[in-house]
Amino acid sequence: MNGIKAIVASIILLLVGSNAAAQQPVTDQTAVVPGPIDRAKILTSPGVFGNFSTYKIRPDYYALPAGERDKAAAEVLAVVGKHKDKVIVDAYLTRGFKAQSDYLLRVHAYDMAATQAFLIDFRATLFGVHSDVTENLVGITKGLNYITKEKSPGLNPGLTSTSYSAEPPRYAIVIPVKKSAEWWNLSDEQRLKEMEAHTAPTLAFLSNVKRKLYHSTGLDDTDFITYFETADLAAFNSLLLSLAKVPENRYHARWGNPTVMGTIQTFEEVVRGLSAGH
Amino acid sequence: MNGIKAIVASIILLLVGSNAAAQQPVTDQTAVVPGPIDRAKILTSPGVFGNFSTYKIRPDYYALPAGERDKAAAEVLAVVGKHKDKVIVDAYLTRGFKAQSDYLLRVHAYDMAATQAFLIDFRATLFGVHSDVTENLVGITKGLNYITKEKSPGLNPGLTSTSYSAEPPRYAIVIPVKKSAEWWNLSDEQRLKEMEAHTAPTLAFLSNVKRKLYHSTGLDDTDFITYFETADLAAFNSLLLSLAKVPENRYHARWGNPTVMGTIQTFEEVVRGLSAGH
Amino acid sequence: MNGIKAIVASIILLLVGSNAAAQQPVTDQTAVVPGPIDRAKILTSPGVFGNFSTYKIRPDYYALPAGERDKAAAEVLAVVGKHKDKVIVDAYLTRGFKAQSDYLLRVHAYDMAATQAFLIDFRATLFGVHSDVTENLVGITKGLNYITKEKSPGLNPGLTSTSYSAEPPRYAIVIPVKKSAEWWNLSDEQRLKEMEAHTAPTLAFLSNVKRKLYHSTGLDDTDFITYFETADLAAFNSLLLSLAKVPENRYHARWGNPTVMGTIQTFEEVVRGLSAGH
Amino acid sequence: MNGIKAIVASIILLLVGSNAAAQQPVTDQTAVVPGPIDRAKILTSPGVFGNFSTYKIRPDYYALPAGERDKAAAEVLAVVGKHKDKVIVDAYLTRGFKAQSDYLLRVHAYDMAATQAFLIDFRATLFGVHSDVTENLVGITKGLNYITKEKSPGLNPGLTSTSYSAEPPRYAIVIPVKKSAEWWNLSDEQRLKEMEAHTAPTLAFLSNVKRKLYHSTGLDDTDFITYFETADLAAFNSLLLSLAKVPENRYHARWGNPTVMGTIQTFEEVVRGLSAGH
Amino acid sequence: MNGIKAIVASIILLLVGSNAAAQQPVTDQTAVVPGPIDRAKILTSPGVFGNFSTYKIRPDYYALPAGERDKAAAEVLAVVGKHKDKVIVDAYLTRGFKAQSDYLLRVHAYDMAATQAFLIDFRATLFGVHSDVTENLVGITKGLNYITKEKSPGLNPGLTSTSYSAEPPRYAIVIPVKKSAEWWNLSDEQRLKEMEAHTAPTLAFLSNVKRKLYHSTGLDDTDFITYFETADLAAFNSLLLSLAKVPENRYHARWGNPTVMGTIQTFEEVVRGLSAGH
Repeated sequence: MNGIKAIVASIILLLVGSNAAAQQPVTDQTAVVPGPIDRAKILTSPGVFGNFSTYKIRPDYYALPAGERDKAAAEVLAVVGKHKDKVIVDAYLTRGFKAQSDYLLRVHAYDMAATQAFLIDFRATLFGVHSDVTENLVGITKGLNYITKEKSPGLNPGLTSTSYSAEPPRYAIVIPVKKSAEWWNLSDEQRLKEMEAHTAPTLAFLSNVKRKLYHSTGLDDTDFITYFETADLAAFNSLLLSLAKVPENRYHARWGNPTVMGTIQTFEEVVRGLSAGH
Repeated sequence: MNGIKAIVASIILLLVGSNAAAQQPVTDQTAVVPGPIDRAKILTSPGVFGNFSTYKIRPDYYALPAGERDKAAAEVLAVVGKHKDKVIVDAYLTRGFKAQSDYLLRVHAYDMAATQAFLIDFRATLFGVHSDVTENLVGITKGLNYITKEKSPGLNPGLTSTSYSAEPPRYAIVIPVKKSAEWWNLSDEQRLKEMEAHTAPTLAFLSNVKRKLYHSTGLDDTDFITYFETADLAAFNSLLLSLAKVPENRYHARWGNPTVMGTIQTFEEVVRGLSAGH
Repeated sequence: MNGIKAIVASIILLLVGSNAAAQQPVTDQTAVVPGPIDRAKILTSPGVFGNFSTYKIRPDYYALPAGERDKAAAEVLAVVGKHKDKVIVDAYLTRGFKAQSDYLLRVHAYDMAATQAFLIDFRATLFGVHSDVTENLVGITKGLNYITKEKSPGLNPGLTSTSYSAEPPRYAIVIPVKKSAEWWNLSDEQRLKEMEAHTAPTLAFLSNVKRKLYHSTGLDDTDFITYFETADLAAFNSLLLSLAKVPENRYHARWGNPTVMGTIQTFEEVVRGLSAGH
Repeated sequence: MNGIKAIVASIILLLVGSNAAAQQPVTDQTAVVPGPIDRAKILTSPGVFGNFSTYKIRPDYYALPAGERDKAAAEVLAVVGKHKDKVIVDAYLTRGFKAQSDYLLRVHAYDMAATQAFLIDFRATLFGVHSDVTENLVGITKGLNYITKEKSPGLNPGLTSTSYSAEPPRYAIVIPVKKSAEWWNLSDEQRLKEMEAHTAPTLAFLSNVKRKLYHSTGLDDTDFITYFETADLAAFNSLLLSLAKVPENRYHARWGNPTVMGTIQTFEEVVRGLSAGH
Repeated sequence: MNGIKAIVASIILLLVGSNAAAQQPVTDQTAVVPGPIDRAKILTSPGVFGNFSTYKIRPDYYALPAGERDKAAAEVLAVVGKHKDKVIVDAYLTRGFKAQSDYLLRVHAYDMAATQAFLIDFRATLFGVHSDVTENLVGITKGLNYITKEKSPGLNPGLTSTSYSAEPPRYAIVIPVKKSAEWWNLSDEQRLKEMEAHTAPTLAFLSNVKRKLYHSTGLDDTDFITYFETADLAAFNSLLLSLAKVPENRYHARWGNPTVMGTIQTFEEVVRGLSAGH
């Protein structure tokens, strides 16, 4: 029952975008969260920690007997189950798209240490022991910073009036963003103006590209982690081209490096898909 | 019969260049493509995904008995056959030209996930398991952006009136291109003017260098993947020198890094050529 | 008795921040320090060497019998005990946060060679032999440079009047800082003015983020190592955002790269936590 | 007949230096070259492909029985002999000078694919299988671009009137050069003027430093490969200092990175010298 | 007797600094140097080649029986002895200070090839075979360039009137320096003026920091290798801070990267210290 409500809420929230959760106070990091994590809620709340890590499987994994590798997925799922009250985990298959990784994990938790505890246990599985981590980015979710009802009354309605209406997303893309010192030394008004110019051309893509933002200044060597889901990579390319063409692009000290792209799969599919080998 | 028509169409299309396919609507990514992929069509259509991946063979491959390595090519070809309704694969031998790789694969598909499925299966072969991927770039084909009949009536005819007339190409070169924020913040008119200056000196090389363009903004840490085929490397050097001398060069944030060069071979030749070893 | 006094002193010093130890003469590096190092004193004295090193555990560690790995922590603690008259050691678990490391060590000593002697012995343990060092930064503590009672009478009281009053820190963050030639070529007065602008917005975070500064010019490829402890990562993110927004940010030649984040643990916990594995 | 003329031309070219070969049409790449390559001719002709590759020997080579390593040189020489009608090979010992490599190979051929065929066979030898390639640069020789009799009548005679008269060279140095977009966007006259300023101070070193130039734009991530031989490293240092002091230095986007230095040895000496080991 | 004289000469030369050897003609590189190298002379002569190489020990070294490792130092010392007529070798323990290396070797010779011959033999020892070289910089010594009696009569006496009078140095620091094209395009007078401003604040540290300079333009991807010895790391930090504050700092294209720091030890101590391991 709760599960159905969560799914419904999740659909609503995905449609309006995670930014609709703006203006709520940051959740107490140490709050006890009884029972399995509410996926819809954690994916739309501010004050949530997002952890993106990519991995390559070492060749020695494929030297193991196939019978051992067949059991790898079950062991991984047991670890996910053990931590289900503290974290939720999304998995993506990146092999074939990017040289730097075979798969990507996205972990959400109200407590950063809970994410670490999960990843420590994951790395102790057969699959994890044979994986090398190649990138790891952490961030925290917040309410809307710029295009709020108050600060940008002309643009804000556009952000919430259009919802994702395309096929279910098949691809996820992660792009870290670091802004230059010049950006951060602009006044609040100047940055708001730039972000309005940034936001306007993106409204046209609310229907076919989902987005979620994580803040990382100080927590990592990036200011933001931008996360996208889509079924239409051509549309995604057009969205990012439109962002390249606004003046805010001049303030990018890092935009990508790496850009991570994967297909959205269950963790079991990812482990099974990567466990085959001569 | 179909095969012959495909070859003829392919020759025609190669002669006029892939840009001649401009202005067609983007193909539905999820369209079912029954039977083997039509090579001529997919190489000239917009909305097609191109995937470039380079590999180095690990030393442990050469510790395998020669008899096992002798069977590697057949296993690879079987995987290509399994996916022939979804992807086409081109292979290039790069060892001896570039330190970063031993071979390059170029895969085309109407669906990016189909490319991934093929590459996952390829990596599970004996040859794939002993290969480390060292670079992977993805892009999508589009119609002409700038030098169209409408926007640049003076220059467009030159692009189509001259065709490749030299010996069959023996070499392929892949050069990623990323443009600066300054470039993307130019007006459309300014960029058109720059691209006209970029295109004019290249017309002289239509007869001896083939070109194909992939768009990657957002999909990868590059804006374009430029792909060339030629039998005349001195001419290719002259073409790229002429591109260095136009003002558009000032807007390159990345031009190469890596430049990938290989000889055009069958996949079987590539696997066999790299399977010999003391 | 001495232990209790040390703890009390330590609490006082942690509350006022390490900068309160300013203006003392630099300790003689070769002074004999009999008995265990006084933790509170060394953590607040100028002229102390701080050594930050990060490590990744090699996969072959997990191929060792679990019984051998079970004894790893005891061997490491014995090495710490052997050197307790010369160095103090803090350990942090970084796996799951950063791709570049599994754990971080912070070592303090009055003599840099004593730190080296400890680390040489540590690397000879089973755990150390199976660890690869991935980063190593060294620095020296000094008294306050800019915001002293004399130079900045308006701002100095703020630094000492507020003390850390939040929950015990759970996380440590290490951020190297290198300033540009332009910074170092400013006059003393200009740098003081910039540092006042840098310091003002940070006062608000004295209550929930602890800080400690190490000077590295010439000793390493960084000018400073900034070390933070907090229980509130959202507050830490806000603190670093406020530092991004001051003009001094324009003089950063390096800020992070890497940013290292870990959970504060005992050395035993770190070794045990990383010794589990399939 | 043609062969004798080529030899005569070759001798003339060796005397005046390779740059004197300017203004000749580029040699047909696919020309059949019967019998062993004419070393003097290929080293002074335009239209020749130069291939520079550096290698490090993997540690497992030294785990082989010394008896096996003793045979490595003979196997390598047999491969050189097999390809002697298509390529010439020079070898240099770099271990002890540069961390990135143990040895350097320079291969010349009229056909780039012939170079690849040789290097593929070389890598299949015992010595090659245990070598990792760490850098690979390719280029093509051309006639003089700037300081010709016609364009720079004042400076050209200086290039040809002085010849190398010092002891036989013992060292070779390879320095890749990439010029900025600003350089390539200068007019031909401006670049000529800069190259005259570049050339003038180098005349003094014609007697003790030999030079050879390869053009790489588009073929690699460099515009030029500059190759030097000398017996006098102090003079070479002075020559490069004089080049640092001309305005053209401001247009360097890459100058070195890596600078490769080795002692000039026979291929057999290089293999034998690197095959000893505990 | 000769040994005592050499030590006395060495002390004198160390006191006045290596720059006191200025204005002598460059030694003939091919001169036969009979008998063991005169340490004091080679360390103060111009025209001497300095070679700095850093190494990391591979993990497989620690898998060797302890009994084998016990013999490693003797084998290394025998190699040093074999080459004592051609090179002198200094060793430094860097493990625990820098992630990039475990030890540093500094080799001086009148002939660069003699250095290579020594390093080739060293790498063939048990200890050398298990070492990976991680950095290698080469340079040549020269007489003073700027602050000579003639060019800078006001500043030159200061360089020679103060001598090192502190405790024997315990630490060595190596910092590569590359200057920008702007620097080299200054006039001789401008560079002299900048170097006077550079030198003035360093006079205060002649008493506690020893320095030696190597010139590398063209020989390596650096212009200079600066070498320091000190017992007082706080003073060294102050010296480098004073150098950061002069305008010449604006012309640094590279300053460090890496900065290498080690404790001064005998080669035997270095090998023994790094040969212990579980």
